[in-house]
Amino acid sequence: MTDFAWTRDQFDLPEGMIYLNGNSLGPMPKASVPAMTRFLNDEWRTELIKGWNTKNWFMQTNTLGDRVGAMIGAPAGTTVVGDTLSIKVFQAVAAGMALVPDRKVILSDNGNFPTDLYMVEGLMKLKDAGHELRTPDPEDVMDGITEEVGVVMITEVDYRTGRRHDMKAIIDKAHSVGAVVVWDLAHSAGAVPVDVAGCDTDFAIGCTYKYLNGGPGAPAFIHVAERLLDRVEPVLSGWYGHEAPFAFDTDYRPMPNKIERMRIGTPSIASFVLLEGALDIWDKVDMNDLHAKSIELSELFIQEVEARCPGLTLVSPRDPQARGSHVSFAFEHGYAAMQALIAANVIGDFRAPNVMRFGITPLFTTEDDIRAAVDTLETILKEERYKEEQFQKRSLVT
Amino acid sequence: MTDFAWTRDQFDLPEGMIYLNGNSLGPMPKASVPAMTRFLNDEWRTELIKGWNTKNWFMQTNTLGDRVGAMIGAPAGTTVVGDTLSIKVFQAVAAGMALVPDRKVILSDNGNFPTDLYMVEGLMKLKDAGHELRTPDPEDVMDGITEEVGVVMITEVDYRTGRRHDMKAIIDKAHSVGAVVVWDLAHSAGAVPVDVAGCDTDFAIGCTYKYLNGGPGAPAFIHVAERLLDRVEPVLSGWYGHEAPFAFDTDYRPMPNKIERMRIGTPSIASFVLLEGALDIWDKVDMNDLHAKSIELSELFIQEVEARCPGLTLVSPRDPQARGSHVSFAFEHGYAAMQALIAANVIGDFRAPNVMRFGITPLFTTEDDIRAAVDTLETILKEERYKEEQFQKRSLVT
Repeated sequence: MTDFAWTRDQFDLPEGMIYLNGNSLGPMPKASVPAMTRFLNDEWRTELIKGWNTKNWFMQTNTLGDRVGAMIGAPAGTTVVGDTLSIKVFQAVAAGMALVPDRKVILSDNGNFPTDLYMVEGLMKLKDAGHELRTPDPEDVMDGITEEVGVVMITEVDYRTGRRHDMKAIIDKAHSVGAVVVWDLAHSAGAVPVDVAGCDTDFAIGCTYKYLNGGPGAPAFIHVAERLLDRVEPVLSGWYGHEAPFAFDTDYRPMPNKIERMRIGTPSIASFVLLEGALDIWDKVDMNDLHAKSIELSELFIQEVEARCPGLTLVSPRDPQARGSHVSFAFEHGYAAMQALIAANVIGDFRAPNVMRFGITPLFTTEDDIRAAVDTLETILKEERYKEEQFQKRSLVT
Repeated sequence: MTDFAWTRDQFDLPEGMIYLNGNSLGPMPKASVPAMTRFLNDEWRTELIKGWNTKNWFMQTNTLGDRVGAMIGAPAGTTVVGDTLSIKVFQAVAAGMALVPDRKVILSDNGNFPTDLYMVEGLMKLKDAGHELRTPDPEDVMDGITEEVGVVMITEVDYRTGRRHDMKAIIDKAHSVGAVVVWDLAHSAGAVPVDVAGCDTDFAIGCTYKYLNGGPGAPAFIHVAERLLDRVEPVLSGWYGHEAPFAFDTDYRPMPNKIERMRIGTPSIASFVLLEGALDIWDKVDMNDLHAKSIELSELFIQEVEARCPGLTLVSPRDPQARGSHVSFAFEHGYAAMQALIAANVIGDFRAPNVMRFGITPLFTTEDDIRAAVDTLETILKEERYKEEQFQKRSLVT
């Protein structure tokens, strides 16, 4: 049984803050400071260039990739970390397109995180080969999977509503018509149990700064099915994915039959150090325990908000199995109400046009936090604090 | 006058080490530890998600971009940091191709850093529109710039030999035939004076982990000429380059007329923190002073090696104005001799097939270091230590 008192103690949360935004940026693990100090003092400072060998910097893409992979059901040797999720979208979809060169339709949905759609837009413009991106409503994705479709690119958990797609069903249908599938697990990894190998996905990508607590802008990851490793096309063909990176050949030869070919350029080792510190916590977490606790806390949150906060309408699915690990409510004055909440040290966030979003993260969130957060929200609504001018002003980042 | 005793004192070099590899990975500035500790304790830990606003994380791409830009002659608002140099190669060359859609030739040279060539290979394969990458000998680049050429992609300073291209002449010729130019400044920024705006380059890219001392895998940068900002195509069209990143529109609209459109995905803030600490040193450095000192130290090094180390042949240009800030010698037993040097705490590196490479970095390298390094090399050669078995074994990273 996962010890959630222990996991909570691994974080250094600011006194008095209730943080319901671990779905956007995870809090700092206590291990981050010593891990980084060690890296700076005992690795970069003393080893300098030798650290690429002596401190395993060069292969951390894979060492950490395997650890992240284990959290999503990926066998060792099929996941690497590095780059940003936007780049990984591009890399995975382009590789998917190359596997089915005669098919011109890429299927996603209009609830997908915008950057996934943007990156595909750019990719299609670059290829200029008559591809088409279809974005039906999320409910219509299954019907949209036809023999025209080459690549299905779906984010499992909707960033706005938390609605969760049926991964297995979509993959099975896609494969039955000869399409390949790219799963974006940005809001799944560390939030819900995922089994990429069991579902036989072709590609999975995601980020590590949300539920995994790797720090702001922590590295992305990409998983490629074992059966594709020998033929997946590394369109972003950087030296780090070369068969012999230090031969300095003028021609690119992808690392044969290995996930290394999905590596691109020299990755930020400092970002790896923070991720490594954060992953140590996950070694002691059972994803099924976490999911059960997430549902327990989420159900409590929904029940309390609906009982005490008139005007807020649940936009997340009511069925807990159909949700990720955040809960969202629509509210006419959502932006200002969220600013008032944040001012009262209860941190969630806002997504246009009217969605108040709350991350439920059992590693460090307790039942008491949930009740206290709703107490504060209730007061803000009662006192109509969202009408105050100070809460109307939009910040750069919402 | 730059105070090089002061700059040397800003680094925490290991006792007894002579580090002639700042052209590959710069040493750790003393400021790195407090900068990172502050970021962890006073930013991520306490501000959490709010840090994107309150600690300016969101705009560090630009704040740091402007500071790096100032080192290469780029006006404010034309440079951003982020991603890896491989990604920036792809981004710049693809954008260059879009500016001259009817031209199918990309001109580089066979001395370019391989990843630049690899990334263009991948880009051409992806576009599949009949493009051709030409890689003549570096000496033949000027003759290769014809009206067939769309994009000229050149690394100013050769990673192996240190040979330096004539930036202004190449740009002038390229523009005279209607081609656009992408300069890779990986071995130039912080090494030699560069004036991208004065030379009117179209694009410049580079990295910050070499001479700039931003740490292993520190962010890359991209500069776009002011005159192109309104029409440069962000083919890697991520949310961070969107006109309204928090509107979460489903369609991509690049930030109009601003360098922001070259941003892609969420960048690693930890990597920015280390870069920021390193850039504080550069505020007090005059690039002309640095270059003069680099030449002084390099000339001394060449003179001493040639006088005392038989068997080593200079492969860098003899004219100091035709070199970057590293010096290379060919030697039959170069690999093993470099391992022996490293074992004796004089750190350079090796590049296949037979090149011993030494970075000359006046921020922290003194005349005494140069003489002591050659003393050690002389002894290794005299004692034929490069024949020892322990120095034959190849490491993963060379």
